[in-house]
Amino acid sequence: MPEAAAPAATPLPARGFPPAEYQRRVTALQASMAQAGMEALLLTTPPDIYYTTGFLTRFWESPARPWFVVVPALGAPVAVIPAIGADLMARTWVRDIRTWEAPDPQDDGVSLLSEALAELVPPSGAIGVPMGLETHLRMPLGDYARVIQRLAPRRILDATATVQRVREVKSDAEIAKIRAICGIADQAFAQVPEFAAAGVPLDQVFRDFQVALLQAGADWVSYTAGGAGQGGYGDVISPAEAVPLRKGDIVMLDTGAVRDGYFCDFDRNYAVGPPSDDARRAHDALTHATEVALATLRPGMRAADLHRILCDALSAKGATPLGGRLGHGLGLTLTEWPSLTARDQTELRAGMVLTLEPGVEVAKGKILVHEENIVLRDTGPELLSPRAPAILPELAL
Amino acid sequence: MPEAAAPAATPLPARGFPPAEYQRRVTALQASMAQAGMEALLLTTPPDIYYTTGFLTRFWESPARPWFVVVPALGAPVAVIPAIGADLMARTWVRDIRTWEAPDPQDDGVSLLSEALAELVPPSGAIGVPMGLETHLRMPLGDYARVIQRLAPRRILDATATVQRVREVKSDAEIAKIRAICGIADQAFAQVPEFAAAGVPLDQVFRDFQVALLQAGADWVSYTAGGAGQGGYGDVISPAEAVPLRKGDIVMLDTGAVRDGYFCDFDRNYAVGPPSDDARRAHDALTHATEVALATLRPGMRAADLHRILCDALSAKGATPLGGRLGHGLGLTLTEWPSLTARDQTELRAGMVLTLEPGVEVAKGKILVHEENIVLRDTGPELLSPRAPAILPELAL
Repeated sequence: MPEAAAPAATPLPARGFPPAEYQRRVTALQASMAQAGMEALLLTTPPDIYYTTGFLTRFWESPARPWFVVVPALGAPVAVIPAIGADLMARTWVRDIRTWEAPDPQDDGVSLLSEALAELVPPSGAIGVPMGLETHLRMPLGDYARVIQRLAPRRILDATATVQRVREVKSDAEIAKIRAICGIADQAFAQVPEFAAAGVPLDQVFRDFQVALLQAGADWVSYTAGGAGQGGYGDVISPAEAVPLRKGDIVMLDTGAVRDGYFCDFDRNYAVGPPSDDARRAHDALTHATEVALATLRPGMRAADLHRILCDALSAKGATPLGGRLGHGLGLTLTEWPSLTARDQTELRAGMVLTLEPGVEVAKGKILVHEENIVLRDTGPELLSPRAPAILPELAL
Repeated sequence: MPEAAAPAATPLPARGFPPAEYQRRVTALQASMAQAGMEALLLTTPPDIYYTTGFLTRFWESPARPWFVVVPALGAPVAVIPAIGADLMARTWVRDIRTWEAPDPQDDGVSLLSEALAELVPPSGAIGVPMGLETHLRMPLGDYARVIQRLAPRRILDATATVQRVREVKSDAEIAKIRAICGIADQAFAQVPEFAAAGVPLDQVFRDFQVALLQAGADWVSYTAGGAGQGGYGDVISPAEAVPLRKGDIVMLDTGAVRDGYFCDFDRNYAVGPPSDDARRAHDALTHATEVALATLRPGMRAADLHRILCDALSAKGATPLGGRLGHGLGLTLTEWPSLTARDQTELRAGMVLTLEPGVEVAKGKILVHEENIVLRDTGPELLSPRAPAILPELAL
């Protein structure tokens, strides 16, 4: 059985990254771009922009303004951004910062972006834009069409793999940040029995859990989810209702808390009073599946292989695996590719940070799920979230 | 001078909305679609989907899966969504729910969405997709192209105005929800002097402020921002640093806290010890500009008119108005259109919820901003955020 990590004891990593980290990332992207025949990469989403520049802000919560970063074939990224972000971008390693007063109903960065791309890409060249699975373009579709039209005859290529094969392998500095937020979340999970008990409404538990995450050191809490029900819970994506916990409930709390722009994403289960035999067996099956994955996962396997390992281990314990994915990548967003499904053939490589998320159906519409965070090393998985207790912790009646 | 609202004293509105509210919204969208010649509207973003269906979840934080809602020319919306959301969607008023196991690398909802749209729109018809200012398409660009291709010869039209002219006028039930979260934030702002004082690092203040928001009743805190500096602060979108507050600092805290899916977005300023004369004058100018806007704003004015009112009032006090927008719409996201700029000609109508956000430059790179939330009534603005104190509150030295 793998040793539990003890991240709470390690000091928190320093904020941000040195310029060399960004230089390394962009060089890796540029190698990938060269292979794909792209003279520039157009990035528009918060994680892609943070990854390449270090520009970190909660201001993305406002959908009003598009933000653009162009990675050229050589050299540092060019930022084409609303003026309100100029000061913060100037604190990153990016030196070429072009701004406009957004939102502008006449021309919301279209000219500025088109000019930047036209400068960096010859008419015979190609521009990469992520447009595949698990991506989206964070700018108005109409403006995108205008930019593309102005850039003709330059070609537009799908840069999904170009970006994902680079971003998915984390550096030691990135892994340290994910480990840090995992340790913070672990401290918050340890406090749950102090505020959750029979009679306490689930929405109050969610609120107190977020408070515990902040007090343990999270910068902010982008995601909390969970559920509670007799011997298992229903879906795990609904907001919490004001329904008091009852004896016999299994409570699950899941969080994507954030420190320095990096997410954790793991959960913990609790029983309100002694759990039923069915719930205990389900929990044992989840524990078993996690242990099997921790013991057998190796680089070179595919996402689909890991999905099968988890399913087989659950079935071996007589449990019914949930449909849908049983884990995924993790890092700059709550979930990253790949997805642990039967269909995802992404190769799992050393340095990838993943969630192991086996789930079982204990009865019609009643489930238990269990999630840990790992980094895949050459020798196998290393836990980033401290291992959940093998025996379901009990909340007071 | 307008009366301050007292939302903290009013009971919180019930969760959710009755089906009649969604029916009314969709009927209004359908009238707008008919005018624009659209047989269906394709929606992909959290606010548009919550608005039309009542589907509310933090699961949007995972970028892995696209979600689709199609508003047909007549009748209730059709949900084309990942299977993981089926249970939650079934609790809304939507009855036609079509699901697939996402993420699917072979076909991530493309066939299902294309079939739904082909059913609802004749080959000679048109489909509306928001593609203008302050919008984006939350699905892979490549899949969008595939859907459009399958739907040929159906036309694709820009549905930005179709959606925005409906969504921007809030119902009384929506206004009650925004007022409720404003009242919650007001309680949290009132507690700031209890945890913020000279010597306390700004990142700790941000953390404690989020805790206060949760403890006052926010479901979650999607946005906190602010700044601190001698006599004014720099940019207002950076994460807080671990720099202790000092005598002479002006501290600003801004929040987009959420209850039941609706945002507040207002800020408060505090002085660490007695403020400088310059800071006091700047604060007076902001107060004056807000009062002028509250006294003179009327339906029928344009966003640009309100921008001018704020600028003129600041200038009249000898202050230098900030560039960029001086307020915006508010509701289902931290910021909605319109934008209070010199260029936005959106008509301001009764029922619109807006932020008034005058800002001044007190010195090179040093600013003060001030924000309140209002609903525009036939007779003028009604405050949703309790009015900020006219005199800068002081934090302990």
